[in-house]
Amino acid sequence: MALKLKGVLYKYFEEDLGNKSPSLLKYNPIHKKIPVLVHNGKPILESLVILEYIDETWQGYPLLPKDPRERAMARFWAKFIDEMCLKSIWKASWSDEKERVKAVRETSELLQFLDKELEQKRFFGGETIGFLDIVANIIGFWLGALEEASGVELWTRQKFPNLSNWANEFVSSSIIKESLPPRDKLAAHLRNRYGSAEVSK
Amino acid sequence: MALKLKGVLYKYFEEDLGNKSPSLLKYNPIHKKIPVLVHNGKPILESLVILEYIDETWQGYPLLPKDPRERAMARFWAKFIDEMCLKSIWKASWSDEKERVKAVRETSELLQFLDKELEQKRFFGGETIGFLDIVANIIGFWLGALEEASGVELWTRQKFPNLSNWANEFVSSSIIKESLPPRDKLAAHLRNRYGSAEVSK
Repeated sequence: MALKLKGVLYKYFEEDLGNKSPSLLKYNPIHKKIPVLVHNGKPILESLVILEYIDETWQGYPLLPKDPRERAMARFWAKFIDEMCLKSIWKASWSDEKERVKAVRETSELLQFLDKELEQKRFFGGETIGFLDIVANIIGFWLGALEEASGVELWTRQKFPNLSNWANEFVSSSIIKESLPPRDKLAAHLRNRYGSAEVSK
Repeated sequence: MALKLKGVLYKYFEEDLGNKSPSLLKYNPIHKKIPVLVHNGKPILESLVILEYIDETWQGYPLLPKDPRERAMARFWAKFIDEMCLKSIWKASWSDEKERVKAVRETSELLQFLDKELEQKRFFGGETIGFLDIVANIIGFWLGALEEASGVELWTRQKFPNLSNWANEFVSSSIIKESLPPRDKLAAHLRNRYGSAEVSK
């Protein structure tokens, strides 16, 4: 998404995480994880680090705001989503009954903060899609696929009007849309890999 | 440390984490954690975010390198230290026997990567102390205090010659030295709070 927004041409390689490619092991020997961005033959690792690298390397469409305080806030919320929300969402989707109920409640509390962040804003980045919108893709797009796969309702849309409007607008934006896999395909993949909540009961 | 390196005047407030101040709860209502940097009456949160904010707000002494790839590498290693190393070091210090042995071995494997990073370098930042050196304070200074407090040997200095030389030089540098608490005081505090390994056996 970031590269598309910047208008940078790139080649996309899928990884089978059950059978990692020699390239992945070569470029990310420590974590052996995706994503990896290879630029001028050298790897850049970790999602948030890659986004900052893209923003600093290619000008044109800025991903982070200019003001240091706004940049800090975007980075703060990015960490909040990438660590706290992600962990909570994952637990809410794939834990057993007892843990799940707790995690669903926790997820809801965390999403409330993001909903508030979006008050009177079209995107996290303001009028245009930016750094934090891309990070929040896990909520804007993945959350629905996770619900579909696990059978667990992770958020009641009405309770989060700002987040819900944002998610709709985000996934409808042409550049984002063309970067996303079909939702039913992702849901099927997740269900195959992790099973649905019914199964794990 | 970052503010001192930049030559910025600041006021330092200690927090009693067993009895958090109204200020802390006001400025960091989500995580209720330190550190918090308050600038122009507004809080900046999360250690790594604060460092970037300081670097972007006050010019003069640069903390991060200029080159986007080098910046990405510094951010990658910062995350590596702040998440993986910290977790492993903490486990190695305060877990029960079985977990501890595993965590000590894991810590050693992680430190090996950092030792390699320091090959032919004086500091992580090159010839001067930078962003990553400050982040690595948990290794340069805290590791010794943790060993003293817990009675667990976390690293054999001879096995990590570069890291060991770096740690010595880092804590001897005048600006760093004056930012650190006395090591025995920190060790006593940690022992009081978490107990030594002997006790937890």
